[in-house]
Amino acid sequence: MKLNCDLGESYGNWTMGLDAQVMPHIDQANIACGFHAGDPLVMKQTLQLAKLHQVSIGAHPSYPDLMGFGRRSLNCSFEEIVALVTYQVAAIDGFAQSLGLELAYVKPHGALYNDMMADESIREAILTALAGYHKPLKLMLQATTRFNEHQAQAKNHQITLLSEAFADRCYDDDGKLLARSKAGAVHNREQMLAQVKQLTEQGSVTTVSGNIIPLHVDSLCVHGDNIEGVQAIEAIKALLS
Amino acid sequence: MKLNCDLGESYGNWTMGLDAQVMPHIDQANIACGFHAGDPLVMKQTLQLAKLHQVSIGAHPSYPDLMGFGRRSLNCSFEEIVALVTYQVAAIDGFAQSLGLELAYVKPHGALYNDMMADESIREAILTALAGYHKPLKLMLQATTRFNEHQAQAKNHQITLLSEAFADRCYDDDGKLLARSKAGAVHNREQMLAQVKQLTEQGSVTTVSGNIIPLHVDSLCVHGDNIEGVQAIEAIKALLS
Amino acid sequence: MKLNCDLGESYGNWTMGLDAQVMPHIDQANIACGFHAGDPLVMKQTLQLAKLHQVSIGAHPSYPDLMGFGRRSLNCSFEEIVALVTYQVAAIDGFAQSLGLELAYVKPHGALYNDMMADESIREAILTALAGYHKPLKLMLQATTRFNEHQAQAKNHQITLLSEAFADRCYDDDGKLLARSKAGAVHNREQMLAQVKQLTEQGSVTTVSGNIIPLHVDSLCVHGDNIEGVQAIEAIKALLS
Amino acid sequence: MKLNCDLGESYGNWTMGLDAQVMPHIDQANIACGFHAGDPLVMKQTLQLAKLHQVSIGAHPSYPDLMGFGRRSLNCSFEEIVALVTYQVAAIDGFAQSLGLELAYVKPHGALYNDMMADESIREAILTALAGYHKPLKLMLQATTRFNEHQAQAKNHQITLLSEAFADRCYDDDGKLLARSKAGAVHNREQMLAQVKQLTEQGSVTTVSGNIIPLHVDSLCVHGDNIEGVQAIEAIKALLS
Repeated sequence: MKLNCDLGESYGNWTMGLDAQVMPHIDQANIACGFHAGDPLVMKQTLQLAKLHQVSIGAHPSYPDLMGFGRRSLNCSFEEIVALVTYQVAAIDGFAQSLGLELAYVKPHGALYNDMMADESIREAILTALAGYHKPLKLMLQATTRFNEHQAQAKNHQITLLSEAFADRCYDDDGKLLARSKAGAVHNREQMLAQVKQLTEQGSVTTVSGNIIPLHVDSLCVHGDNIEGVQAIEAIKALLS
Repeated sequence: MKLNCDLGESYGNWTMGLDAQVMPHIDQANIACGFHAGDPLVMKQTLQLAKLHQVSIGAHPSYPDLMGFGRRSLNCSFEEIVALVTYQVAAIDGFAQSLGLELAYVKPHGALYNDMMADESIREAILTALAGYHKPLKLMLQATTRFNEHQAQAKNHQITLLSEAFADRCYDDDGKLLARSKAGAVHNREQMLAQVKQLTEQGSVTTVSGNIIPLHVDSLCVHGDNIEGVQAIEAIKALLS
Repeated sequence: MKLNCDLGESYGNWTMGLDAQVMPHIDQANIACGFHAGDPLVMKQTLQLAKLHQVSIGAHPSYPDLMGFGRRSLNCSFEEIVALVTYQVAAIDGFAQSLGLELAYVKPHGALYNDMMADESIREAILTALAGYHKPLKLMLQATTRFNEHQAQAKNHQITLLSEAFADRCYDDDGKLLARSKAGAVHNREQMLAQVKQLTEQGSVTTVSGNIIPLHVDSLCVHGDNIEGVQAIEAIKALLS
Repeated sequence: MKLNCDLGESYGNWTMGLDAQVMPHIDQANIACGFHAGDPLVMKQTLQLAKLHQVSIGAHPSYPDLMGFGRRSLNCSFEEIVALVTYQVAAIDGFAQSLGLELAYVKPHGALYNDMMADESIREAILTALAGYHKPLKLMLQATTRFNEHQAQAKNHQITLLSEAFADRCYDDDGKLLARSKAGAVHNREQMLAQVKQLTEQGSVTTVSGNIIPLHVDSLCVHGDNIEGVQAIEAIKALLS
């Protein structure tokens, strides 16, 4: 079971995330590509940090929306999504190669991620961008009960999927994340570790209503925004090792 | 003698340049990379147009300034310039490769181009970006009487230079372009063709004061902003063939 | 019956619209405020042009999306819409006053306009912005069969509405514009003038299926993107005078 | 002696500055206007915070450069500076009035501030923007030994100046700030309070070489970036009261 984290989300003079503290503990770094965060210098420094800790790197492309941090859906055309994903993937790929790193996968950010999960045509646009890229890239998406359907769609493009679960979020019976507005949406430390253990050992989660549903998971998404997040990562790391 | 032109400088709903009319006549397309013009979809369409006409492609990176079209100097640090050039070069390189094209060279845009010619440390930053890129890229700069000095600097980075002259601009005795504010700064059709002929056959220009100075030139910069520009390109093409 | 037109939609080096040719013929100029088009200098020049021709001025605020020209819906929160409308209205209002002009109304642009017509809560956010502004401003929206409903909503905020119709677009039986993808969506010159005459004299339009529906209309939206648009404006002007 | 501080420099999801902790202690808030920081919602919230603590508000306009936080000189034309200052001043003015606040002054930000101090023509452009604004606004600039010269220039535009000194920075014999790269450039707490006392009581500073030079000062610039800054403000406040 791998750990992935969104990193490189500073921008110019604004700092976000405890990247230097998180990087030693994770396996996969989802690195912002300039459209929601991550100016060229931040991107370079984040790649260098990933190299130092031998962390696998993924592109973290977004709708172009610095003001909204990529968290607001932007109603782009199919062709616009293909182009904006390709641009961002290319930018980080060339940067990574120049530092002796290999781009391994793509994980869309924020609203683009949510739209990809909710809308087949947006998923198709992202897969089209990756299939059209000149080298193989995996697509990381959310582990759900619809994974087989997603995998069939990806297979049409010869794209390999990576599925991620959230360590600290409670799932509903549809295998979706319980909305943050609902009671029990975010696990405490003990619940989080129990969920990690269950995902790792049994490939399942216990939902908010107590049901057990299987989830195919390659990686756990963890958060490095603050010191609590870093401590949670360390606890998960200790459990998994 | 090759012809190069700045292309792909539309952005979203704004159109600039008669790209489709210019592309059939030129050898090298300097393509905007998103920082002064050229959103991802425009960049893609411009690359496809270059492919159709088998035109060699160059990155045309800029200071980040859409509002000023990259024509205003921005006082960036050395590291910022290295990073912003690398980012833009990588973005177009990955896009180009995905369309089966090979990025051949880099020609900085607007104020970054002017600053590169005027300031050794900015030239050094751009050369550092190119030398650090994971594949060989040539740098296109302005043909001047200081070409040997520029070549020595580039050689330290193992970068090959391409030098360009301007077909329609009058030169001063220092081998610089006569400022646009001065009388005679821009040639008429006949003068332009005479200058092209002299550059091609004798490797020299006749300056504003009537002196003849040698200029090493690999390529002529032509303009496709309007129909007069396209006609000038056709006239130069006829002369050279 | 007044004529309104979107103007000031150039940006930096990119030119859009035949503003100087359109301005003499219209009554109301909807001026871009920097978020989809219209940098500060363009905004100033457009206001000066409006002053020269004694044209009433309206703010033309947009989602923040230069790349998409404000034509892509951006999923903003209520509070975000209130703030971004207030910001843009304030920017043009202060500019206008400094040139001796009085801002008269607000007409949202592109996707924000469409979302305002389709979504009551977005209309509410825009009305909230205008009601909270320190001086009275009218809101221009699309003339539809739901005008009374819109007026009731506006009245809660003590906002006066201006309703606009489109001279050159065919209406469906719901009083909406026939989608551009459908046959007959855009009128030819003769049909356009007939529609203008009917709107002006009878306060109604004949729909695509031949029904006559009443439309309360204060202003006709005309277009100055190209020479055909300017000629259409002149023809309408001749008809109305 | 008043205290002023740069505030409202968050942007979207990025937080900067301990605004809520600083606002109760200061007299004048320099509020970012969206070009280097401060999106519309941040601007609104900062104005509301200023209102709560009855703090006088100033516009803090910048070159358009989010990536560089307005700290990089951008080579704008005179007319561009006039327009971009007017736009930003208008945006915050209308917003402020709508919240029942009165914009009192303008203090340019970062590189625009430095360029204003170093370059008479940029100072002239900023004064032209303020003189052209439809209501009287003061200009805050740096207290130097050239204050009389600046005042004469401002008087031509009937603009009143406010001059600010820096509590924690050492001055050189020209009345400029000692460059941060030099030893002793930033005062410790004790030195800072001594400088505040001397500025307040004697209207002078002791320079790095021990000379005493007179400085006309209306306000002290303090910093709220971190907890040390807030504590320094509290110490200054205690000294002054």
